[in-house]
Amino acid sequence: MVVKVYGPMCGCAKRVMVCLTEKEVEFETIPVDVFKGKHKDPEYLKLQYFDAESRAIMRYYSEKYRSQGVELLGKTIEERGIVEQWLEVEAQNFHSHAYNLAIHLLFAKPFGITQDLKLIEESEAKLEKVLNIYEERLSKNKYLAGDFFSLADMSHLPFTEYIVNTEKVYLIRDRKHVSAWWNNISNRPSWKKVVEMDKAPI
Amino acid sequence: MVVKVYGPMCGCAKRVMVCLTEKEVEFETIPVDVFKGKHKDPEYLKLQYFDAESRAIMRYYSEKYRSQGVELLGKTIEERGIVEQWLEVEAQNFHSHAYNLAIHLLFAKPFGITQDLKLIEESEAKLEKVLNIYEERLSKNKYLAGDFFSLADMSHLPFTEYIVNTEKVYLIRDRKHVSAWWNNISNRPSWKKVVEMDKAPI
Repeated sequence: MVVKVYGPMCGCAKRVMVCLTEKEVEFETIPVDVFKGKHKDPEYLKLQYFDAESRAIMRYYSEKYRSQGVELLGKTIEERGIVEQWLEVEAQNFHSHAYNLAIHLLFAKPFGITQDLKLIEESEAKLEKVLNIYEERLSKNKYLAGDFFSLADMSHLPFTEYIVNTEKVYLIRDRKHVSAWWNNISNRPSWKKVVEMDKAPI
Repeated sequence: MVVKVYGPMCGCAKRVMVCLTEKEVEFETIPVDVFKGKHKDPEYLKLQYFDAESRAIMRYYSEKYRSQGVELLGKTIEERGIVEQWLEVEAQNFHSHAYNLAIHLLFAKPFGITQDLKLIEESEAKLEKVLNIYEERLSKNKYLAGDFFSLADMSHLPFTEYIVNTEKVYLIRDRKHVSAWWNNISNRPSWKKVVEMDKAPI
C-alpha cells in the first residue's frame, strides 16, 4: 500500500515524510495549496480535525512498521518512555518558539502576515533557554533520547531547518553539542530526500 | 514498587495520578511547594528537564502495566493511532487555552499574576471553536478515540475540571455531547479519588 501524505510542503508534512522514509514505507504526496485556502476545504477537513497531528501519525507508522526500517521508538518500554519524554519536550517547549521564528522571519511576506518584531525577540529568548537545556542533554548523549536516533530527534528536523535558514542560525551553530547533533541528524539520507522534494516544483 | 509522584497538586501531577489509579499502580505523592519556588530547586530539576512531560509519563505507565487495570492505549495499533491523535489534539489545541483560563480565572491571585482580561477573552473564543469540533466528534463516539475510554479522554480531566469550576462552565455544559462526555469521565472513581486527594490537607 502506498501511503498518501496530504498537505502543503509544511513542517508537519515533512515530519511525516521523513518518518515514512526511515521506515521504508512508500508514499506519495497530495499537494494542498494553503495560499488558495484549500486546507479549509470540507473534503480536506474530513481527513483530520486539527492540523497538529503529525506526531501522532509518526508514532502510528513507527509502531505499525516496527519490524522494518529504522527503529524509531526505542527498543524497550523504558527507551520508549524517554523518546516520549523528548517528543513531548519538542511539542510543548521547542515547537511554538521555533514556529514563531519561522513564520515571522521566513513566511511573513508570502502569507501576508505583518512581521511581529516583539514576538521574534520573545521567541528567540525563550528558545535560547530551551536550547541551553538541549546543549546539556546532548553533551551526555548523542541523541535526545539516548544513544539512538528516534522520533524525538526526527520531530525537530523541519523547524530546526527553518531556523538555520534564518539570521538566527547562531541559536544552533553557537552551541557545540546542539550543532553536532543537528549536523548529524540533518545529514541523514531521509531528511536530505525530504529537503530535495521541497525544492522540486510541484 | 511504589511510584513516587513529585510535584504540586497541579494539573500535570493529577494527569499522572489518575493514570496510575486506572492502571492499579500504587503511588505516593511527594509535595513540591511552588509558592516557595521549590520546583526550581536543582534537586527537583534533576528529575525532569521541563514541566510538560505528564503525557509521556502516562504513556509509559500505560505501556509498562498494559496487562493490568484499564487498557488506556486502545487494543490495536489502529486504536492506539487514534488515541495518539486525540492526545495530540489535547496537547496542541485544547491545553493552552484551557490553561490560560484556569490560570487567569482561578489562580491569578494566589500566584500574584495580574488577571489578563484580553487573554481570557481570546482563550475563551479559541476554546469555543475547539469544543465545537469535540461536540461533533462526541456526537458520533462515546469517547474521543472511539467507544473506549483512553488516555485521550483522561488527559482532559484536570483542566476541564478547572474550567467547570469557573464562570466559563457554560463552555462544557451548553454542549450536549461534550457535557455528557464530561459527566461520564469525571465520575470515574479514579478521577473522584484524585479530586478528593486535592481537597485533603497536605
